[in-house]
Amino acid sequence: MEKFRVLEIKKSVFEDNDREADEVRKELKEKKTFLLNLMSSPGSGKTTTLMRTIEALGNEMKIGVMEADIDSDVDAHTIASSGAKVIQLHTGGMCHLDAGMTRQGLEGLKADDVDLAILENVGNLVCPAEFDTGASKNAMILSVPEGDDKPLKYPLMFSIVDVVLINKIDTLSCFDFDFEAFEERVKKLNPAAKVIPVSAKTGEGIEKWADWLRGEVQSWNA
Amino acid sequence: MEKFRVLEIKKSVFEDNDREADEVRKELKEKKTFLLNLMSSPGSGKTTTLMRTIEALGNEMKIGVMEADIDSDVDAHTIASSGAKVIQLHTGGMCHLDAGMTRQGLEGLKADDVDLAILENVGNLVCPAEFDTGASKNAMILSVPEGDDKPLKYPLMFSIVDVVLINKIDTLSCFDFDFEAFEERVKKLNPAAKVIPVSAKTGEGIEKWADWLRGEVQSWNA
Repeated sequence: MEKFRVLEIKKSVFEDNDREADEVRKELKEKKTFLLNLMSSPGSGKTTTLMRTIEALGNEMKIGVMEADIDSDVDAHTIASSGAKVIQLHTGGMCHLDAGMTRQGLEGLKADDVDLAILENVGNLVCPAEFDTGASKNAMILSVPEGDDKPLKYPLMFSIVDVVLINKIDTLSCFDFDFEAFEERVKKLNPAAKVIPVSAKTGEGIEKWADWLRGEVQSWNA
Repeated sequence: MEKFRVLEIKKSVFEDNDREADEVRKELKEKKTFLLNLMSSPGSGKTTTLMRTIEALGNEMKIGVMEADIDSDVDAHTIASSGAKVIQLHTGGMCHLDAGMTRQGLEGLKADDVDLAILENVGNLVCPAEFDTGASKNAMILSVPEGDDKPLKYPLMFSIVDVVLINKIDTLSCFDFDFEAFEERVKKLNPAAKVIPVSAKTGEGIEKWADWLRGEVQSWNA
């Protein structure tokens, strides 16, 4: 038997996504489920970072993962191997998830007993930034190979996130990446955003990321 | 004076994008202008590859570049320094270009005397694949750090391109990338697609890419 379900997400029927997102957030708050919306470009390391996150926090809280992909179940297979609860969401070509689609995912995941639900959004720095999913917090990953100029080119994404992980810092010998310039560009768009350098591959920095996430989950339930 | 214009692209009014794309293609054929639609994730090296392409072919043909970005003029500044004709297209939040938007770009570029027009599409592996821009050929870049599994996750993009450049092969010491598995995944979706490994940074492989592009431009005008 497969270790996870595959759910074909339907287009949302709600005209007012912001209102629907607030509804989702309110329900999650009541159920004491913290929802993290994780966004990034394709190939920046969302799934590997999630594996590290589950490793770091899986003993303290019940974690559930929604893997959104246009097609394929590659990432859900990987996450399922961690023992976390996981569901694969197929967006059927859609380039983002909105609040209605996220609600379908949460229902499919049966997230009621989950402390930390994580939505791995479609790999895309444009469209997901435009839709409030109802998440408690928004996170993004920018990997070193993508370059330190990305806040200039995808300003909306960097404006709406609570935390930016700079992933693949183990590859700094292969790339020029100006952390100071990057952080300055992020802060200009979003002074409150936290920036945490990590390597999901080696584990460097993951403790700091887990600390941040643990703190947010605790505040959500306080 | 700025070396390039910035054009705020308007939403297309055409309901039938495919028909509009065929129109654009027909007009380009008559004017002997070859249009390359270049797509990729954010940070895969589109602009650096374009600089190398202009360096390799700029003496043989007149090249014009349309830089599509949601915001910012970073890439147009870079391309302008090469001496090529360039225009910056601002998509105003839109995550792709369609044929009508491409037409606005070609008109803004004044592409009539251009032999090779290149559209640097918005950095996104999802939406641009869904819209025929009217291009003579479609190309994409997949960079080594993004990983060899991307054809599984973004199948439509890999299905509609004529050529895939694997960029950043200079960073192979930092990453596991299985060329054979990658090519197999591409061929399964798209048996006719050509795959060319390059490093836009060191110039490795660029000659092969320039040969392919030169051949296509010649066939277009034959």
